[in-house]
Amino acid sequence: MKWSVAEQTESDWPDVWSVLEPAFRAGQSYPLPRDVCEADAKDYWIKTDGYNAIARDDTADIVGVYYLRPDQGGPGDHICNAGYIIAEAARGRGYAAALCRQSQEQALAMGFTGMKFNLVVASNKAAIAAWQKAGMAIIGTVSGAFRHPQLGLVDAHIMYRKLENGGGVSN
Amino acid sequence: MKWSVAEQTESDWPDVWSVLEPAFRAGQSYPLPRDVCEADAKDYWIKTDGYNAIARDDTADIVGVYYLRPDQGGPGDHICNAGYIIAEAARGRGYAAALCRQSQEQALAMGFTGMKFNLVVASNKAAIAAWQKAGMAIIGTVSGAFRHPQLGLVDAHIMYRKLENGGGVSN
Repeated sequence: MKWSVAEQTESDWPDVWSVLEPAFRAGQSYPLPRDVCEADAKDYWIKTDGYNAIARDDTADIVGVYYLRPDQGGPGDHICNAGYIIAEAARGRGYAAALCRQSQEQALAMGFTGMKFNLVVASNKAAIAAWQKAGMAIIGTVSGAFRHPQLGLVDAHIMYRKLENGGGVSN
Repeated sequence: MKWSVAEQTESDWPDVWSVLEPAFRAGQSYPLPRDVCEADAKDYWIKTDGYNAIARDDTADIVGVYYLRPDQGGPGDHICNAGYIIAEAARGRGYAAALCRQSQEQALAMGFTGMKFNLVVASNKAAIAAWQKAGMAIIGTVSGAFRHPQLGLVDAHIMYRKLENGGGVSN
């Protein structure tokens, strides 16, 4: 698995959108309308106070993307929130956990001391396993917080990990 | 305790700001910079997809204010998020729990099926007791998620209540 991660640039957007769009259209993981237009999706994915990255393998094929941003403002801005999407062709090969771990290193470098996910759809078992592999723990669950297109109301987990320099991330 | 709640109008803003400003300047409860300017505070408090209310007693003195809005978008928009501030002169008289309960009735009327608070600063014991009196339960805690100006890093709770018609709210 040779791959590398770089900060997303404006010229990456078409590639990023090619990964986001099928995930958003499937409607099984993100709190966006399934028919979200590209402009609204871009506003959701890219924030002025956030960081966006794109991972590619050694043939420049896109592996996945993520965003990283403060979960809250002011006195809560030392905890980050993040979201990931792995390209369909790259799934099942461990990229989700690896990308999450890389984003934790990035978050540490940006000064964040914790990482929090606010809505991890409970039916996304592979995703939850990947985040747990990256050290994220379920710290709470909201019953029926997500309307899944096939499963109906599904629980959503809140996950958290404290980020620490000196090996705390690279487990 | 005679009081009433009405939807906030543009002309209410100076009164609303008079309640928000001291709370934001104190920096002990909301994830905003303590020196937040009025315009940014207004952007935080009033969202295009939200509902804002103002409660006054029978002499028209402001008792408190709240916002109500979807906690997430798309398939997560049936759960609301809310925030409250009780006017300093009105504290200690049960208004927080009462206003929270009123906001739950409002949320039900708007079609929400649950209410979620994302950052309840653990040192705000009176607030937590009020929300619990209004049926909200702590469903998770993020360690050290809030930088309190006097106490340093303080935990933040996530609180939730399912909203149900037919007496579920008026406990």
